[in-house]
Parts: sequence; structure tokens; C-alpha cells
Amino acid sequence: MSYIITSLLDTDFYKFTMGQLVFHRYKDIPVKYAFINRTSGIPLADLVSEEDLRRELDHVRTLRFNNSDLHYLRGTNEYSERMFKEDYLQFLKTFELPPYRLMRSNSSYFLEFSGKWSEAIYWETFALSIMNELYCRAKLSMLSRFDQETVYAEGKMKLAWKIRLLREHGRITFCDFGTRRRFSNEWHDSVVRTLTEEMSARQFLGTSNVYLAMKYGLMPMGTSAHELFMVMSGIMHGSDEEIRASHKKVLQDWWDEYGWGLSIYLPDTYGTDFGLRDFEPYQAAAWKGVRQDSGDPYVFGEFKVIPFYRGLGIDLREKIIVFSDGLEETAMIKLHDHFSGRVRCTFGWGTNLTNDFRFSPLSLIVKPVKACGHGVVKLSDNIAKATGKPKDIELFKKIFGYTNTYSKACRT
Amino acid sequence: MSYIITSLLDTDFYKFTMGQLVFHRYKDIPVKYAFINRTSGIPLADLVSEEDLRRELDHVRTLRFNNSDLHYLRGTNEYSERMFKEDYLQFLKTFELPPYRLMRSNSSYFLEFSGKWSEAIYWETFALSIMNELYCRAKLSMLSRFDQETVYAEGKMKLAWKIRLLREHGRITFCDFGTRRRFSNEWHDSVVRTLTEEMSARQFLGTSNVYLAMKYGLMPMGTSAHELFMVMSGIMHGSDEEIRASHKKVLQDWWDEYGWGLSIYLPDTYGTDFGLRDFEPYQAAAWKGVRQDSGDPYVFGEFKVIPFYRGLGIDLREKIIVFSDGLEETAMIKLHDHFSGRVRCTFGWGTNLTNDFRFSPLSLIVKPVKACGHGVVKLSDNIAKATGKPKDIELFKKIFGYTNTYSKACRT
Repeated sequence: MSYIITSLLDTDFYKFTMGQLVFHRYKDIPVKYAFINRTSGIPLADLVSEEDLRRELDHVRTLRFNNSDLHYLRGTNEYSERMFKEDYLQFLKTFELPPYRLMRSNSSYFLEFSGKWSEAIYWETFALSIMNELYCRAKLSMLSRFDQETVYAEGKMKLAWKIRLLREHGRITFCDFGTRRRFSNEWHDSVVRTLTEEMSARQFLGTSNVYLAMKYGLMPMGTSAHELFMVMSGIMHGSDEEIRASHKKVLQDWWDEYGWGLSIYLPDTYGTDFGLRDFEPYQAAAWKGVRQDSGDPYVFGEFKVIPFYRGLGIDLREKIIVFSDGLEETAMIKLHDHFSGRVRCTFGWGTNLTNDFRFSPLSLIVKPVKACGHGVVKLSDNIAKATGKPKDIELFKKIFGYTNTYSKACRT
Repeated sequence: MSYIITSLLDTDFYKFTMGQLVFHRYKDIPVKYAFINRTSGIPLADLVSEEDLRRELDHVRTLRFNNSDLHYLRGTNEYSERMFKEDYLQFLKTFELPPYRLMRSNSSYFLEFSGKWSEAIYWETFALSIMNELYCRAKLSMLSRFDQETVYAEGKMKLAWKIRLLREHGRITFCDFGTRRRFSNEWHDSVVRTLTEEMSARQFLGTSNVYLAMKYGLMPMGTSAHELFMVMSGIMHGSDEEIRASHKKVLQDWWDEYGWGLSIYLPDTYGTDFGLRDFEPYQAAAWKGVRQDSGDPYVFGEFKVIPFYRGLGIDLREKIIVFSDGLEETAMIKLHDHFSGRVRCTFGWGTNLTNDFRFSPLSLIVKPVKACGHGVVKLSDNIAKATGKPKDIELFKKIFGYTNTYSKACRT
């Protein structure tokens, strides 16, 4: 029987861009990542067997980067010349995932990844892809054979509809960000192949999945994630000022590592209001743009980002907003119609692209919970998406002057 | 219906190593390559339809290097760090094969590739793989369905035998050099996959086929070919001394381009006797070794190469002979038993690895026939393998002091 993950490249590109930064600067920092099921109504452990889950997780630990995987990464030059350095590639050559810790507790799974930051960072997407696919298989297996066929037929019709609609809106550009919440490995592959064959390369820009980017000759896409800011707060833990300073340190490190090529800023770890206050004018001028990943995207663009750039006298038409929060095709069209002509925008399309079936997808995440022994926190522009211990969340709200009240439940 | 060649990487690695040298130094040199059927008894044009042949050749001309192909080449570092330079990769990015010229003449095909050397050089392997596969299909199509199945069953049994025998001779190392004369694309893929799965990586070292090296994470293997020397004789055409000097120029260019990493010398273009006379002691000391591609391999090793190195006081155990001429498994074992312990040896296994069926494989070649308007010649250590016009062959024999009389007919 085949496995869900068969290549260590079957992950998001940003795991490598973040992974290299971590390898170069914070290799041995002790961290702990934890799996969190935000769709708390679903008794995951009653649906997904522990044996199957362990079989898949164990298998990923046996995988290694092969010669061609490393050729591909070494040859990556879309963002800057030879962006992956030889020391990092040598590290990957012998890399294996650190152990995981899995326990069943009633109908839930407790799943954690502890270790050096430079190693534990890679578990996230694999654990999520595995958990999602096992869950989807469980749901499928409750149907008759013919009903299973209709599930795929529906999925194809929906994909056809998305393609038709977006072709009519030919100025919208997007890429696939759907690795972690995909219905299955196989379906993800067929979605990306279909988009490659059916859409213009000017519209479908690429995929965050490195394996599929390689397989279909697409551009590997990615920015960076909250985990950099979160872990840095543990590394620089101390007074309120020190914790606050950890946010800016990430921006500096990122620019030092990659420069302009990967300069898309994710400002919402502690709320976009703080994120923009902490974005120095010289940085705002230099960086390509920002990514919107939580809260109301219109508020983010209209009342935060646009006034921010305007206030600095920066030409908005040279900046880009990458929308990536819970998109679907009509939302993309509306956002594009609303913002286009004033600021450039593009879309990182995730769950709804690779898991749009009759079963509601789960909202699963794997996030850092500790770094250097300190609890870490993500607030975001949607307080329902906050992660961390309640006490730490309150502390971080105070430190970062968080006043947001927007709250929208994740899928339950 | 699918095509035989579906990727421009489905070629021999040395096309890129030679191709880059040519691109850097002799980009616009006008050359002509010609297809030659040395198995003159086979009425190729009666078996392979011109329509099918044109369809395949035309299709290769539509192919382009995609993003991932270029990542892979950019990431190649097995022979030296980042051996393919950015200017060459940019050239490949927009590369397309130049036009071909095809005519049927009675039962033969006349097939030529003229153009700039930096472009025409890539036709060789594609033209040969296509012609061979169309021929093998024609032979297969004459059989009943069940007989066709037995052809593949026999092929598998022979491959199983080769693997079993070579496993018993675990110190023999070899790689696949069988792209150009393979039975089919599909069979080649399955042979390489099988060797990857069934043999130790210490024994099966890799493949010269870049597409398959990429697909299976293998080492891309290759040295260089006669065409470099042949075309250089046209570039430096003039007095006997100038033509003679063209041979050494290739060695200098090759070392300047790749240094030690790719320093396997192919000495037999004008006969190995001349080749070794023209190999300066400092070169012999620096280069890794030599490739044997014509004549009697024992004579080559025992009476030419070994005395040559000994005469210079070079430690033979640090040098390697790559045997690559018409090998099969028992010949490899005999050669290994004969030479091992005295000089390192390895094997580039071609036709007999990828086309060992009941049909005798054809002996097809594509060679340069003209460069800068001058006829070019290959003599080799087997005068039956010589190419060039009879008048030019006589001239080159004189210039290079060729006295060899060994002659062994190619498959007829």
C-alpha cells in the first residue's frame, strides 16, 4: 500500500526559505510545535486510526532528500541567484525528521514535535497533509462505491467552474497554497496539473508545493509564516521591550537572508496594527508588499495597508497585497475588483482550491507552542485564530498594544 | 498518441557538458551532422515510415526546457560546483532544435542537421533514440500479440540474468550509457528503475540519461565524445600541423571548462596511438583517466594505456579506464578480472543493456561530417568504424600517423 508522503519536497516552499534562515542563525534553538484541531466538533481520533497515523508519520521519517531534490533546490533562482546555499543543502542531504510524540486522548489526538528548530520546522506540512488525507479517506469510506465516484465527479465539476470563472476574469492572478489541507496527495496533483494545462501561465502563477512545482515545471511560490515571529519571541524573551523587539529582528534577518526577492511581509502575528507600526519607512519602501492572512481583507487593505503606504508617500501601484486567508473564487473576484488599479494584488488559494468537496474540510494547524522554554503566541487579526496559553495571550496583547475585536470562528 | 521524446533532458549528459563548452567558445561555428546506418543490410526506410519519422522529429523541435529542467541543470554539482553557468542556462531557456533535412533514397534515409554548432549538437541522441524506437516498433508489429508479450518476457529474463550475474561480481561498477540505442523510451525507463531498485548504488553508479537521472535521483554520468575533436579539426583547418594541433586544443579547452571533475580522456578519435602521443605528461598526471571506445579493449589497456602511464612513472592505481565499446555482462566480468588490482576500471554499458531482445539492434550513428566547410573524420581504433570521406580519411591517416590495421565489422 502506498504512503501519503513519498518525497520530502512534498511540502511548502516557505519551509525551505524559513528553514535556511533558521539553519543559518538559530539551528539549535529548542522548540516545540503542536498539532491543533480548530474544528473541535470533529472527533478526529474516532475517524482516523492511530495505527494508520503512526504508519504515515513513521514513513515520512524514513524519507531522505535525494540527489535530484537537491539539484532542484540548488538550481532555484526565481527569487535570487542560487538562494539556497551549499551549507544548507549539505544539511538537507543527511536530514531526517526528529521523533514525534503522539497520544490519543478520548476522541482527540495530541501530537507534538520537539527538537532543534532547524529540524522540527519541517513537520508542519507533512503532519497536516497526512491528517487531512486520513480524515478524508475515513469520510469517503463511509460511502458506497458509486457515491465515492460522485464525490470526485462533484470535485471535478467545481474545479471546472472555478477555471471557467477565473478565465473570464483574466487579470486575476493566483497560485496554489493548498498543500496542507488538500483532500489527498493524488487530488492535489491532479488539480495542479489541470490548472497548468487549462489556464494561462499569466494567471496561474505557480504552486507552493515544491514537489509539484518540480514535476510540472512551475514556479515554486511562498512567502513566510508566523512561526518565525513566534519562535523569535522565545529566543529574545525578557522584558516587554525585548519581546517587542523580537518582531523587528525577524524582518531584519529575513531581509539579510534574501533581500528584495522574498520581501513579502506578513504583518499580523500580533495584529496588523502593531505590524505596520513596527515596519520602518525604509523597510516599507524597500519591501515588495504584504500578505493578508486573517481578519477582514477589506479592512486590512482599505483602512490599514493603503493609508499606511499613503502616509509614507509610497506609490501604491508598486506594492502588492497577497491575499491568502480562506479564499474562494467569488471572494477573489470581489477583492480584485475592489483593489485593482490602486494596489497590485494576487491570491494564495488554499483549502478551497484543493479540498472543495461535499465534506467540510477540517481547520487543522501545527504551530510553535514553546521556544527556549517560553510559551509563544500568535494573535492575528482574528482573535478566534489566536494560539497560545490564555495567560500568554493576555501578556502579548498588552506588550503589542493589541486592541482588535474582530472575531470569526474557524470552521467547526 | 504519445511521442518518443517528451523532454529535452531525455538525452545524454555529455550533450550538456560538450554543449556548454561549445556555447562558451564556438557558438556560431557552422557544422553539419549526418545520420549514418552502419547496419547497411537493413532497409530502414522500408520499415520506418517517413510520416512517423517526421512526426517525431517535428515534435522534438516543439519541446523547450522548462523551469524544473533548468533547476536540475543549475543544481548539478557532481563534477564541479555549479558547473553549468548562467549564460548557458539562459541560452537553453529559449533553445529550440534547428531544422533537419530528411530525404528518402530507395530503402535508406538521408538525414542531416546543419546549423550553428551550439544548436545542431543536440540532435544526435534524439534522432538516434527516435530511429531506433521506430525500428523496434516496426519489428514488434510483425509479431502476433502473444509473441510480442514473449519479446518483453525474454527481455526481462535477460535483465534478471544480468543483475544476478553482476551481483555475484560485486566489485564491478557500471553505469547506463544506453539512451541512443534503446529498444524504447519505456523500456529504458524500466531498466534504469529496475537497476536502481535491485542493485546497490555502489555497483550501479548512475545513468547518462539526464531525464532518468533526475527521475530516479541518480548521478548523471558522462564523459565527452569524438565530435569535439572532429569539429575542431575543421575550425583549425589549414596545414597538417594546424590540423594536428586541433586535437590538443580540445584537451586544453575541456580542462579550462571543467578541470579535474570531468577529466576522462577519449583518445581514439585519430587512433589511441596518436591520442597518447598527444597527451602531455602533465595532462596524463592530472586527468582522472581514459575512455576506451573502439578496437580491442585488452590491447588498449595492456599494450597502450598501462605502458603509457608506467612510462611516465604515474601510479596506475589512481587512474581509471572507462570501457564503453559494445559491452555485455560477460565481457565486463572478463575485463574487470583482467585489469582489476592494476588499474581502476568501470563500464559504460550501452546497447546491450537497453536493447537486448531477439531483434539485433541497429548500429546507427549521427556524426559531424563538416565543420567550417571542411570534411571531418573519425578514425578510431577500429578502421571499420571510421567516418568521413575516403579522401579525407586517407589525409587524416597521414596527418595523424595512423598505422592501425584492426578492423571489426559493426553489426550488419
